[in-house]
Amino acid sequence: MASVSSGGDAPQRRRGGRERKRGSAGVVARPFVQPTRPHAPIDLASEDAIERIHTASLQVLSETGINVLHDGARAIMKKAGADVTADDTRVRFDPDMILEHVAKVPRQFVLHARNPDHNVLIGGDRMAFCLMASAPNASCMDRGRRSGNQDDYRNFLKLAQHHPIIHLLGGYPVEPVDIHASIRHLDCISDYITLTDKAFNVYSLGKERIADAIEMTRIAHGISMDDLRRQPSVFTIINTNSPLQLDIPMMQGIIDMSSMGQPVVITPFTLSGAMAPVTIPGALVLQNAEALAGLAFSQMVNPGAPAMYGGFTSNVDMKSGAPAFGTPEYMKAQYVGGQLARRYNVPYRTSNVCAANTVDAQAAYESVFSLWGAVNSGGHMLKHGAGWMEGGLCCSYEKVILDIDLLQMVSEFCTPLNFDDDELGVDAIADVGPGGHFFGTPHTQARYKDAFYAPIISDWRNFETWHEAGEPTAMQKANAVWKQRLAEYERPALDSGIAEELREFVERRKQEGGVPTDF
Amino acid sequence: MASVSSGGDAPQRRRGGRERKRGSAGVVARPFVQPTRPHAPIDLASEDAIERIHTASLQVLSETGINVLHDGARAIMKKAGADVTADDTRVRFDPDMILEHVAKVPRQFVLHARNPDHNVLIGGDRMAFCLMASAPNASCMDRGRRSGNQDDYRNFLKLAQHHPIIHLLGGYPVEPVDIHASIRHLDCISDYITLTDKAFNVYSLGKERIADAIEMTRIAHGISMDDLRRQPSVFTIINTNSPLQLDIPMMQGIIDMSSMGQPVVITPFTLSGAMAPVTIPGALVLQNAEALAGLAFSQMVNPGAPAMYGGFTSNVDMKSGAPAFGTPEYMKAQYVGGQLARRYNVPYRTSNVCAANTVDAQAAYESVFSLWGAVNSGGHMLKHGAGWMEGGLCCSYEKVILDIDLLQMVSEFCTPLNFDDDELGVDAIADVGPGGHFFGTPHTQARYKDAFYAPIISDWRNFETWHEAGEPTAMQKANAVWKQRLAEYERPALDSGIAEELREFVERRKQEGGVPTDF
Repeated sequence: MASVSSGGDAPQRRRGGRERKRGSAGVVARPFVQPTRPHAPIDLASEDAIERIHTASLQVLSETGINVLHDGARAIMKKAGADVTADDTRVRFDPDMILEHVAKVPRQFVLHARNPDHNVLIGGDRMAFCLMASAPNASCMDRGRRSGNQDDYRNFLKLAQHHPIIHLLGGYPVEPVDIHASIRHLDCISDYITLTDKAFNVYSLGKERIADAIEMTRIAHGISMDDLRRQPSVFTIINTNSPLQLDIPMMQGIIDMSSMGQPVVITPFTLSGAMAPVTIPGALVLQNAEALAGLAFSQMVNPGAPAMYGGFTSNVDMKSGAPAFGTPEYMKAQYVGGQLARRYNVPYRTSNVCAANTVDAQAAYESVFSLWGAVNSGGHMLKHGAGWMEGGLCCSYEKVILDIDLLQMVSEFCTPLNFDDDELGVDAIADVGPGGHFFGTPHTQARYKDAFYAPIISDWRNFETWHEAGEPTAMQKANAVWKQRLAEYERPALDSGIAEELREFVERRKQEGGVPTDF
Repeated sequence: MASVSSGGDAPQRRRGGRERKRGSAGVVARPFVQPTRPHAPIDLASEDAIERIHTASLQVLSETGINVLHDGARAIMKKAGADVTADDTRVRFDPDMILEHVAKVPRQFVLHARNPDHNVLIGGDRMAFCLMASAPNASCMDRGRRSGNQDDYRNFLKLAQHHPIIHLLGGYPVEPVDIHASIRHLDCISDYITLTDKAFNVYSLGKERIADAIEMTRIAHGISMDDLRRQPSVFTIINTNSPLQLDIPMMQGIIDMSSMGQPVVITPFTLSGAMAPVTIPGALVLQNAEALAGLAFSQMVNPGAPAMYGGFTSNVDMKSGAPAFGTPEYMKAQYVGGQLARRYNVPYRTSNVCAANTVDAQAAYESVFSLWGAVNSGGHMLKHGAGWMEGGLCCSYEKVILDIDLLQMVSEFCTPLNFDDDELGVDAIADVGPGGHFFGTPHTQARYKDAFYAPIISDWRNFETWHEAGEPTAMQKANAVWKQRLAEYERPALDSGIAEELREFVERRKQEGGVPTDF
């Protein structure tokens, strides 16, 4: 296991020095540090309620069962003792068998980046933040909203690389539809590896793509396939087809990734009132049944392979059917989802999401609800950490910057206070005395530069000064910042031999025609 | 004690029926319910750290002491055993003496409104939300920003009365400077009583104002002065003059209010880096010293009188000196402040605040940070719950509505989930089966109307529909809503005898010239 794993659950020291460096444009450069949750996750539901969900979801798995569309997966399940009927996709699972397999999921694991300084621990009290993933559209204030394309795709990767608070690439920030689907993954993963040096996601969209992604990851890390098998370095999201269906590409994804020892994040998309019961407890029963089935299957494929419990339960607007995010119901599902993941000792994935169409107060409050929900529920991996808009249909440049500021604030909140005598300042208080002030005192002078978090976005000028400056909104501030940050981007170092091997692989695979697109 | 007190710490039932009624304009009318925190407050600091702050603040009180500018207050302190020097304002306090007095503060109390349905419990796991208070300016999108005036003052009271999620009036939402200061309190308190039927705040700005407020409260409740003494019905905020000064009006406020059994909320305004040490632990030491001094003094005046521990520690921008709110440092101070209040078994007051100049993403994220900080830190009274902008310099109509939506979402989050079999929905999941959907099923039909919180502001339409509607922001939506809500306002019933007595009192006091304004 690499350096980060040695930290275990203990507080992680800031690497790259305690001091923050100031960048060329006055931007404070931060070290790459995973926030450590400073308190136990909140238990919202009683132990009894968690057991009721647990029991109900096992009942769903044993009585109703799940449709498994992948023949090979059903064969593996049958071998593991599941109740598989010939000529039928329906599979039913004995509760004990499910629990026996889920118990094999590792409690935590290290996700390796090609730059080992960017390895992250998934589990314990550590959090890891991902860039937004899978938006069909990109937007900025200057050019409005457009279909995903390679130019925006690359810009978002650069912003993710430039900001150490983004620990992982959770998928394509936008889908670059200007690249043909047969070779898109080759260009996208190549960009992951050359424009960034952080760990990344591969989509479970057919075995060929996964095979290519695994080989490209192996090349990037400069290791053998055997080594890669022991070193989680690329992860995939497994979305169930709720209710109660596991489709072919997703099951293939588990088979290919788990057998290679790479993490699978089992994430039912159980929208309460649509694909799941209209009650949050009911939606959680369905979420839990599907998550347990996926987790158990990953261990049937390869016992001990890393896996995560993904929670994505939210509600819909019952008048329009529109999905909602960052709602009170979303938060409740986040909290109870975290309790369920802890029930099984499986790392928990959650998300920073909203349904807003512009980076206004709604975008902020829905995102911040989901963000504190993630912290308080014990989330280990935060998907869609920066950029998410419109229920996932758009990645916004301004929202990327806003969210980076929010994530940095969460990280600052997680930094422990120091209660040493000097910090308690009894002597400083005595020196200043009643009616004095602390500006300019030695106690303040020694600390003021790093005393407080310096926000990217917040405008703390008084009204008159702000008015004279043209009354800029947070969104306008973010618009100026992303351009500056993009201009400051520096491509990370990459061994020339690795770069060449990667280039050759991509070229060869393109010449071979890439992958089939009729999955 | 009135009806609400019987609830104690037990979950409060929704009064006015479980069903939500729909108003004339399709607005869902909510019952007047205090949210019950659904989990224990979060302990951010270790027990040892809390004891270190505790010990350090007692050391400040005993060694450095506090300047007490009020002669009568010093006399009371001297009688209680404090170290008062003749011809000097400095007072030092023995730690045991402080703790002995603080131990007499009631753990919880009921704050009575003239409408007993609007009584609130302060303490336990219950929360009470106040309208914003004390802004010198008001603003709306239509007319921009202007000095506080009676018209805006009354409109804000009407919005507070109209929304059951606003439990208390925490002070004048804007200062109506178009009323002469000598009689302003008479008009303002008269408006409190006639335009609303909720409990309210009086400013500690001289004994005459407090005497008038107490008499007007007595009239409004239709009770004797002796009864009022046993029935907390009007509260005051005591801001220390940090560092370490207690000024004359504030000490007079404690003397007058505590002797009448009315609650005092001791709130040091300890801005870290300005009036308090640049470290958050140091600012908390100062906050705690000042809060303990004020709390102890209230008990010297009247043992057992209701009082609260107010936390308002935040940080400043060290470049400009501008105060900041809703920052990571603000949240840390909120959390640890709550632990300190629990250390002394005193109810805790905190706030919903931001430094933004417009109702944009910044206003939302700073407010939501402080809002979840309030919930998680164990806050009992949330001051400035709705409307606060610009670090307190402005009350915004649009922000009032946005915050009301946020408070309602917090309240919805606090509503317990129901884990009964029907709600877990195993049968419904079996009925729908793999690949089906839950729209239109009997399980959904029976529940969909009240299943989820219906937000005031959030726009969940898809991008295209929202674009065709002119791309409204959350602030624009709020602008339309406050006008509608103001139009729907209904004046609460008031006994004609009480109304007449109140009118006569105000008239007489105006004829007498009101109060001196040279305090």
